[in-house]
Amino acid sequence: MPPPTAIVISIGEELLEGRIQDTNASTFAAELLLRGFHVVAMHTVGDGPGELKELLQSLQNKVDVILTTGGLGPTEDDRVRQEVAALLGVELVSVGVDGAVDFLHEVFARFQPGPAPDFFLAQALIPAGATPLSNKVGTAWGFHCTLGQRTELYVLPGPPRECAACFFYGGATEDLALRFGHQAHQLAHAVLHTTGAAESVIEKPIRAYLRPGENPRLGITASANGVCLSLLARAEPSGRSAGEILEARIADLQQQLHPFCWGRDADTLASVVVRSLASAKQTLALAESCTGGLLAGAITDVSGSSSVFTHGWVTYANRAKVDQLGVDDALLEGPHAVGAVSEEVALQMAQGARQRAGSDWGVGITGIAGPGGGTEEKPVGMVYVALVGPGGQEEVRQLRQYARGGRDFIRRKTVCDALDMLRHAMAGISQTK
Amino acid sequence: MPPPTAIVISIGEELLEGRIQDTNASTFAAELLLRGFHVVAMHTVGDGPGELKELLQSLQNKVDVILTTGGLGPTEDDRVRQEVAALLGVELVSVGVDGAVDFLHEVFARFQPGPAPDFFLAQALIPAGATPLSNKVGTAWGFHCTLGQRTELYVLPGPPRECAACFFYGGATEDLALRFGHQAHQLAHAVLHTTGAAESVIEKPIRAYLRPGENPRLGITASANGVCLSLLARAEPSGRSAGEILEARIADLQQQLHPFCWGRDADTLASVVVRSLASAKQTLALAESCTGGLLAGAITDVSGSSSVFTHGWVTYANRAKVDQLGVDDALLEGPHAVGAVSEEVALQMAQGARQRAGSDWGVGITGIAGPGGGTEEKPVGMVYVALVGPGGQEEVRQLRQYARGGRDFIRRKTVCDALDMLRHAMAGISQTK
Repeated sequence: MPPPTAIVISIGEELLEGRIQDTNASTFAAELLLRGFHVVAMHTVGDGPGELKELLQSLQNKVDVILTTGGLGPTEDDRVRQEVAALLGVELVSVGVDGAVDFLHEVFARFQPGPAPDFFLAQALIPAGATPLSNKVGTAWGFHCTLGQRTELYVLPGPPRECAACFFYGGATEDLALRFGHQAHQLAHAVLHTTGAAESVIEKPIRAYLRPGENPRLGITASANGVCLSLLARAEPSGRSAGEILEARIADLQQQLHPFCWGRDADTLASVVVRSLASAKQTLALAESCTGGLLAGAITDVSGSSSVFTHGWVTYANRAKVDQLGVDDALLEGPHAVGAVSEEVALQMAQGARQRAGSDWGVGITGIAGPGGGTEEKPVGMVYVALVGPGGQEEVRQLRQYARGGRDFIRRKTVCDALDMLRHAMAGISQTK
Repeated sequence: MPPPTAIVISIGEELLEGRIQDTNASTFAAELLLRGFHVVAMHTVGDGPGELKELLQSLQNKVDVILTTGGLGPTEDDRVRQEVAALLGVELVSVGVDGAVDFLHEVFARFQPGPAPDFFLAQALIPAGATPLSNKVGTAWGFHCTLGQRTELYVLPGPPRECAACFFYGGATEDLALRFGHQAHQLAHAVLHTTGAAESVIEKPIRAYLRPGENPRLGITASANGVCLSLLARAEPSGRSAGEILEARIADLQQQLHPFCWGRDADTLASVVVRSLASAKQTLALAESCTGGLLAGAITDVSGSSSVFTHGWVTYANRAKVDQLGVDDALLEGPHAVGAVSEEVALQMAQGARQRAGSDWGVGITGIAGPGGGTEEKPVGMVYVALVGPGGQEEVRQLRQYARGGRDFIRRKTVCDALDMLRHAMAGISQTK
């Protein structure tokens, strides 16, 4: 039996004008996929009268589920409830939940004295016969109703936090599970992360798994940080569960893609490094120049990183490298200077950080992020990353980041490369590139 | 005369599965808006046979412009050129540009010896009668053709860099200008940025400008960093140019929204702060704990920041605060300790950084980013930001960041608040909140 079909609709002029990047559509498309739906399209429409009604009319009875986000707020533009009521040929009525209207009066009173006006109270109205979906983090109610013979419509607010609250905790997921749940438990999903190899290198040993009809279905996505593999497994009639099928394939892929594959699902390169350091009871100190604190920012993004990371220096000026990290002045100025962007300075930065922090590992980064400051000998994108470790490890790599990627790309890619060097060093894996 | 209408279509299963966040649609919607188009909808469809053809068929003669992205690559899924050719009832033919096929052979040879196979060479095929759109940063050609009587179709590759190259430099913008250009020069667009006031506060003094039909049209968008105003001005029949109308309204808004409004268009809070420091020939040193280097990362994101920023410390451990910045040990441990998250420690961090760097300004940040580490007295989200300056300025603020926003939100909001404090201090504006 083919999976039930779904369409996600995002509503708002601000989306059509490109003022806001819609994140709801991809978030809920992924959630619907995991619940066993085939998302066949996503649409974005404005809030003009009739626009949504016309679109819903053209879709009803053609798909099993429609999920809309946006257009439920307290302003004149927010016409979604009216559009749906008009399509159903019913009136708008109160959600009929105790305290719903009082709550809106209360919220309104925080901004302005007196009772809330009708346009504000409209946030607790839904089409007659619809089921309210609660929104614990905002003021607009969502709702569910059936269009035509078979299309289940879930109407959710636009702000991503409110939309998620309404979907996950407001009644939508339960309703979907009741109506379509028999599909969902037969699926399992995971993402594997790799860094350090091009898409073509990753693809080569696993090409057979990419064929259409393979279970799990495998998708490849390349980004600046590396290549991701996305797996979706379905239970087999033989009785093998989706989870078993998924984990078997993951084990295989991890072996094929060693040493590039470093994590799965919510792992980040920084979280993997922090975990390795924590389990080895080791600490890290960072000395950054061109990345300007972004590597420390990535490490401290990991909750619990304080057990492994104690000291970071952003030695942006030459003077800072000398007075804070003990880099030899003669490397930076004078007849024998090699310049701040050099193997020697990166290494002394790493050593200086490690020594001053009394840490196990030290990293030093110096380079040219551009757009200015490049020369023929040291062009924009040239970066040195040095790593020193507790077992006498000492490694300096020259990176040539893609200059046309721009300053931000060069800095972020350098953070990623430095984390990958750390990961390899922690694992004792020698890195070839 | 109403503006010409446009629709943006994004193509790919990876979008419908939520594996990739589509950024092309909003980018090109904004570009079309600036060229005088009314974007009436955005659609995302898969790469199954017939899907795109059916959608294009339903739209042709109903809109003036359709822009598609994706589905032009060298794999089996990339069927867009076939779909369009089928709709037009024509064959696929070579782009007819000298060297186009040789180039594909050359690129293919980098990965694998021998001549390129047909599926790879297909990237230089377009429907007969279509005009090729060149792609200087990738291998797939885009193209333009007319559907039905009046719908101009621009077919572009999916990777954002390639899509942009094809649109801006491959012939699409010139073709749009030739066909619809009379509209575009009558428009002018700008974005104003504010921080420190809620949407309702920003809206109050400028409500009259938000009315439908106002010129410039004004849109408000709230995000974690503040409230943005988006303005779109149209030339008036009286002869006032769009630019004049836009700048007059901007001057007015900047006055109304002082001191919240800090920049326009590509400005960032960090770039505004760096610019102020540079024009005052002053320097800045940073001492960060809970933000872990993100503030330094934001400052050094600004090209040219090296003239104003020399030293940063990420003193994540108490020990680092003491040994690197000279924070008084007794504040952190012992009978009179106030703890690392305190007004006193933030201030000593700022002072220590300023003194050691020999800079004009010093900032110290310490707080609880969570999810762990909160207490009743010092809950997750409590942050102290201290600022010391060259004129004896000394200011410590306690921030209560929205804890449910999560660790990342708390850290990023703190960076934004610290930059705003710096901006106010540089401008000598007293901040009320």
